[in-house]
Amino acid sequence: MTQSGTPLGDTKRTTLHRVPHKEVKDRAALYAILDTALVGHVGFVQDEQPFVIPVAIARDGDSLLLHGSKASRLFKILSGGVSCAVSVTILDALVLARSAFESSMNYRSAMILGRPEELDGDAKERAFEMLTDHLLPGRRESLRPTNAQEVKQTTILALPLDEASVKISSKFPADDEEDLAWPVWAGNIPIEHRYGVPIPDPRMTVDHPLPVYLKEWSEGRT
Amino acid sequence: MTQSGTPLGDTKRTTLHRVPHKEVKDRAALYAILDTALVGHVGFVQDEQPFVIPVAIARDGDSLLLHGSKASRLFKILSGGVSCAVSVTILDALVLARSAFESSMNYRSAMILGRPEELDGDAKERAFEMLTDHLLPGRRESLRPTNAQEVKQTTILALPLDEASVKISSKFPADDEEDLAWPVWAGNIPIEHRYGVPIPDPRMTVDHPLPVYLKEWSEGRT
Repeated sequence: MTQSGTPLGDTKRTTLHRVPHKEVKDRAALYAILDTALVGHVGFVQDEQPFVIPVAIARDGDSLLLHGSKASRLFKILSGGVSCAVSVTILDALVLARSAFESSMNYRSAMILGRPEELDGDAKERAFEMLTDHLLPGRRESLRPTNAQEVKQTTILALPLDEASVKISSKFPADDEEDLAWPVWAGNIPIEHRYGVPIPDPRMTVDHPLPVYLKEWSEGRT
Repeated sequence: MTQSGTPLGDTKRTTLHRVPHKEVKDRAALYAILDTALVGHVGFVQDEQPFVIPVAIARDGDSLLLHGSKASRLFKILSGGVSCAVSVTILDALVLARSAFESSMNYRSAMILGRPEELDGDAKERAFEMLTDHLLPGRRESLRPTNAQEVKQTTILALPLDEASVKISSKFPADDEEDLAWPVWAGNIPIEHRYGVPIPDPRMTVDHPLPVYLKEWSEGRT
């Protein structure tokens, strides 16, 4: 497994062409973005037309895991070994400058390029666990175990984290000096992604207690 | 301008191949998603490699507006009239079933396919206003006006909302009957996207009051 200190594969196509100060080269920054996000946007090409579809993600070491139904068009195409791009974006703030032109957003984003590889056997079993632990943390031990039929109906792909770009914007408004006196409030409005109050399934007839981890989520992750 | 009652253009490539119950055909649903989201993920192809890049969006009638620097690779490519896909996703909840297999997410998502067209003159001026009003609502009148140099440095593209698919998932866990007795809490955890406490720009030397709309945002939109 690649150390998180190893720099990202630096190819011409993942080198950013503008605002290079936003580019981040260390693998730990990439991992942090992937470990925070729940969904990536997967781009692929069919008959020369690009498509972009949201997919739940999880990271396992130096691979990004994607899973979906064996019957879905996306997973049929991706398991054929085609090139894809996965973009993961977390919005952190609106940056409200004195002009519309300088107004922007703070964000953390990553794009990974590569050919996903379909997993099978033990690797697929492990990937199921990694996906469950990322998307439903703390929950795996208490769930009805995945059965053979479900494993069969699911395609799990691993995309190597070899070729990736990371862009992080974390700043206050960058107005020119001469605009600073413009009479308007300027600053950042944080964008928060958080969990709300759990809503019990109406089909839950026994009154199972809300687990501690679900109570804690509302203060933590998304 | 297309009425919001007009059905979405229904082509083979935007027809969903699975879970058709999730597909939504009315234009109002598409508009509602685009009017809520701040960012879309734009997919395009260069040298047979797909790329996916997050871009701030706004809707103007039956067009989706994208804007960026004239110098950026993305906007150079897109203004050349190539085919692209824009995917917009809003996560609404984690759906915690009794099995990992049935666990999922509730979301609203749209994918638009088409060739963006570069705007100029009055259309570009109007698009600047629509973008500002969507991304920075209530703020345009108080900002330092956009100048000719800034207009020149910005590319604004309009993507017609002719060919689009909308997918909405809004449900409780869909466990099979025989799993309902599994002894675990099941239900939905809402995912909330909201604004946090505004952080004044340290370079704001005059103590401009926080506008009312910024106070109100923390209860409203994202």
